[in-house]
Amino acid sequence: MRLFCNNTFFYSPFGNEGGAVITVHAPATVANMVCGFDVLGFAVNEPYDEMHIRFCDKPGVTIHNLDDYDLPTQPELNVAGAALLAMLEEIPEPIGFELAICKQIKPGSGVGSSAASSAGAVVAANRLLNERFSKQDLVRFAMNGEKVASGVKHADNIAPCIYGGVTLIRSIFPLDIVPLTVPQLYVTIVHPQIEVRTADARSILKQQVLLKDAIRQWGNIAGLVAGLLQEDYDLIGRSLEDVLIEPVRSILIPGFDTIKKNSREAGALGGGISGSGPSIFMLSKDEATAKEVQAQMHAVYERLSLDHHTYVTTINPTGVRLVDQ
Amino acid sequence: MRLFCNNTFFYSPFGNEGGAVITVHAPATVANMVCGFDVLGFAVNEPYDEMHIRFCDKPGVTIHNLDDYDLPTQPELNVAGAALLAMLEEIPEPIGFELAICKQIKPGSGVGSSAASSAGAVVAANRLLNERFSKQDLVRFAMNGEKVASGVKHADNIAPCIYGGVTLIRSIFPLDIVPLTVPQLYVTIVHPQIEVRTADARSILKQQVLLKDAIRQWGNIAGLVAGLLQEDYDLIGRSLEDVLIEPVRSILIPGFDTIKKNSREAGALGGGISGSGPSIFMLSKDEATAKEVQAQMHAVYERLSLDHHTYVTTINPTGVRLVDQ
Repeated sequence: MRLFCNNTFFYSPFGNEGGAVITVHAPATVANMVCGFDVLGFAVNEPYDEMHIRFCDKPGVTIHNLDDYDLPTQPELNVAGAALLAMLEEIPEPIGFELAICKQIKPGSGVGSSAASSAGAVVAANRLLNERFSKQDLVRFAMNGEKVASGVKHADNIAPCIYGGVTLIRSIFPLDIVPLTVPQLYVTIVHPQIEVRTADARSILKQQVLLKDAIRQWGNIAGLVAGLLQEDYDLIGRSLEDVLIEPVRSILIPGFDTIKKNSREAGALGGGISGSGPSIFMLSKDEATAKEVQAQMHAVYERLSLDHHTYVTTINPTGVRLVDQ
Repeated sequence: MRLFCNNTFFYSPFGNEGGAVITVHAPATVANMVCGFDVLGFAVNEPYDEMHIRFCDKPGVTIHNLDDYDLPTQPELNVAGAALLAMLEEIPEPIGFELAICKQIKPGSGVGSSAASSAGAVVAANRLLNERFSKQDLVRFAMNGEKVASGVKHADNIAPCIYGGVTLIRSIFPLDIVPLTVPQLYVTIVHPQIEVRTADARSILKQQVLLKDAIRQWGNIAGLVAGLLQEDYDLIGRSLEDVLIEPVRSILIPGFDTIKKNSREAGALGGGISGSGPSIFMLSKDEATAKEVQAQMHAVYERLSLDHHTYVTTINPTGVRLVDQ
């Protein structure tokens, strides 16, 4: 049964046992988009998880891992499994899903690894079900995966993973997702190979903030949304400022201030911590700048002798993508 | 010298003493636009102040009141005077302005009475000076009038008064004003005849707020900006929610909760306290709804036996307007 990711001779992870197989690419996402803490996120084109799903005779969810991350295959402990179980609860028929996951987004990197698995699974399953559920339903199901991963049902990775582009989660209860039409943006991401636990990143935040800082933050998010919708790159750059969360959380990420400063000097519009870290992202108007930013990030972590991966990619306008086999 | 407002036979407030006269209409404005506390405001078409200005031989600022509000005529104590004095500081020539003000926006009503005088004066003076200064300069000058009125240099009435439409003040220092293109909106305003001092309205606010409430607020302002720019009336309505300021300040305004509830039931998209009150505003998609909202407001204050004025108007897209004489 075990097959390898990225095998160009690969047609079906399930062999020739019959039944239509749906394959999807579920992209990485950046949540907590600077001043948009907890409400703004976006999808990128690289990296992405590859997932395959088909109906099977055994009711419930059966999971196969096609990668080396050794993630749980018990559905209720697996983020994709938990998302599919939530979907099954709203399906009257006794259906069984068989899912094969080839993760390429490293868990714990801060670019929505768990969201990609949860979102990818429900989008793929929904295709098998002839699009029975709305995108908002899918977000609701996939949030159960986030609960398995971090203990909290949040949607700021899930929503952009399913809708694509930049999405605003105006409200979680009730769920109110606003996809934003945005201009071309290049994204440079660096993932330093350290661990920042989401729970730790949450626990160091203050529960109370100064009203004047909150006002500055909502001036910035209003400016960021206006800049994105009005294609005003200068305004986007001026608004990419976080006076509340970043000053606290960035102390967990070596080299953060230098990377941010050097990226801005290299021409980046701005950026910050991706999710709860440790990855850092920067937005640029063009590819040349995004690559120069990559070189700056690389140089900083070379000097700190810190292992890291970098990506230069673009905002993914469509989210989870069905792949023709 | 004294002339009457709205006299259709009126040509010049200064008689026939010579020199070109510029006349402007400076509109009322709504600051603290619900979730956009301190950063979002808009101009309306009614009511407005009428002001006339010309050069005079005496350097500095000479002020005449054409109304019955008995406001100070010493320029440094008059909001329009203070704004013009700030402008004169950046003019090397020894210039004198003679200004005649006919206020129609009642001071203390919460719809930017002081901002209209300050903004109207500098826009009119700038016309005399052949548009020597930018709009941003004019906002900077006019903020000195706000300092005279309330002790604080704020721009959320001044900016919409000068730019028109809905404006975001992303930042005050440095000044960063973002005009937002918005769809047709009707505005119903009720001004109960009670006094709410801006200083009192400020002092009852808590200096610290819960992070979770601040997050809800910036989700809402992001939704409001997206709704305005994407002409999504439902989203505008869902986003017109203020979980931080309104619950505290509305206790100073009799009948607030009932007016809000009844207005929503009558079809209003939503609304809240105008500025620091006591006026309340509601936004509607069409004129019939705005008039029904007006009837609801009227009924509430009739039951409370509270004197009040109401206006049904629209968002003013241009701000201070030059009037042909």
